[in-house]
Amino acid sequence: MTTNAHALAERYIASWNETDALRRRSLIEDTYAEHARYTDPMVDAKGWEAIDATVAAVQQMFPGHRFALAGAVDAHHDTLRFQWHLASPDAAEPLVIGFDVASLEEGRIRQVFGFLDKVPQAA
Amino acid sequence: MTTNAHALAERYIASWNETDALRRRSLIEDTYAEHARYTDPMVDAKGWEAIDATVAAVQQMFPGHRFALAGAVDAHHDTLRFQWHLASPDAAEPLVIGFDVASLEEGRIRQVFGFLDKVPQAA
Repeated sequence: MTTNAHALAERYIASWNETDALRRRSLIEDTYAEHARYTDPMVDAKGWEAIDATVAAVQQMFPGHRFALAGAVDAHHDTLRFQWHLASPDAAEPLVIGFDVASLEEGRIRQVFGFLDKVPQAA
Repeated sequence: MTTNAHALAERYIASWNETDALRRRSLIEDTYAEHARYTDPMVDAKGWEAIDATVAAVQQMFPGHRFALAGAVDAHHDTLRFQWHLASPDAAEPLVIGFDVASLEEGRIRQVFGFLDKVPQAA
């Protein structure tokens, strides 16, 4: 399942980077089960609509920044874990480093358990 | 919830160290919801009975070794993450390093998503 796991994690990251509203929603529907739940320290979003609104809000907070997978996707049973970076294109260091465990259901994400490993320091 | 999260993670670790069958089962019932699921790369166990059998099997594989929390317990919403070590009492280095995300339900564990960060090398 390693290849599928990596492809799903890449699609998940792509949904965080997609700023066209229609394409983003389509990616989210391809990536998450309809009643999926996404949590991180700041957010608890249930279902496509709430997840899409969460992604749109984060994009507005960090305009021009890009998400990327950081390192390998570790997968077993119906579970993935991976780290990600959020960075400005011209930055040497990521602004945010996050870590997600995603639980799957029939090849789509049922729940994301998101954590933050590095957050921006207050100016 | 940080204090409760830490206490729950400590109880979870204690259940992995408890070799008395009755006390172990009691700890497992205090720690997990009845139909909880535990997965790691080698195991998919559902319910108290299967989880207890998993813990007993691991204890037989590593006699005399002890589990311990490694570092802080990171908690938000109904989710914990923490790293743990499995070590022989006289060893300088842990034999196994693992990482768990635990999803909670009414103060007990509903699901453990377990991963391995270091596994024993074949002799």
